[in-house]
Amino acid sequence: MAAKRDDTEVSAEPHLKVRLQVGAGVIGPGKIELLERLEAEGSITRAAKGMGLSYRRAWYLIDTMNAALGQPVTETKVGGEGGGGATLTPFGRELVTRYRQSMTAVDAAATPMLDWLGAALEAAPERD
Amino acid sequence: MAAKRDDTEVSAEPHLKVRLQVGAGVIGPGKIELLERLEAEGSITRAAKGMGLSYRRAWYLIDTMNAALGQPVTETKVGGEGGGGATLTPFGRELVTRYRQSMTAVDAAATPMLDWLGAALEAAPERD
Repeated sequence: MAAKRDDTEVSAEPHLKVRLQVGAGVIGPGKIELLERLEAEGSITRAAKGMGLSYRRAWYLIDTMNAALGQPVTETKVGGEGGGGATLTPFGRELVTRYRQSMTAVDAAATPMLDWLGAALEAAPERD
Repeated sequence: MAAKRDDTEVSAEPHLKVRLQVGAGVIGPGKIELLERLEAEGSITRAAKGMGLSYRRAWYLIDTMNAALGQPVTETKVGGEGGGGATLTPFGRELVTRYRQSMTAVDAAATPMLDWLGAALEAAPERD
């Protein structure tokens, strides 16, 4: 059985919920996905749309990250098609990359416990 | 700089907040500490007292774990001094051990990201 870290769906299988706390700010998979989509789409509007968020909400999430980190994760892309858009700063890009690497390592680290626990739950033990 | 996972205090340093989700239940460092104290003290009352919890609250936390896990993590200790008390079941004991091992591995897995982020925050970059 594979270990899972499932942060949004309700899952019967044991899994970790992991958040990165930076001062008063919290960064989790939703905010990181937003940054990834922003990078891919070159636009906050399109990134928001792809996640079913309003532009206002997406902007709020980004602003929250910028405040917690003390430096911007996104920047305005000057020129190009349509005269602009948004992209990640080098810092924002590195944050996403390191966050993803870290969560992969965290999942692997938790796999033995999660597999054991999943098996223990499936064994449907007698209560005493 | 060492990575930290600090689940209760407000900390300026970036850290992970990790919870183990089992169905609708959530197991974190507080519940695990309660089990450890219960094992050490042989009593829910004393374990609760050591954490500043009421007996009622401690029992509720244990009951929540039992329900989520579908099997008891504690049991009544028959006989002995004072005619009884509480202890962990073998399952409860293994849960605590594996949880602690797992969290140590998770901390180690996140250390590169947390150290990088801590250094990035300390660098007090210019805003653009």
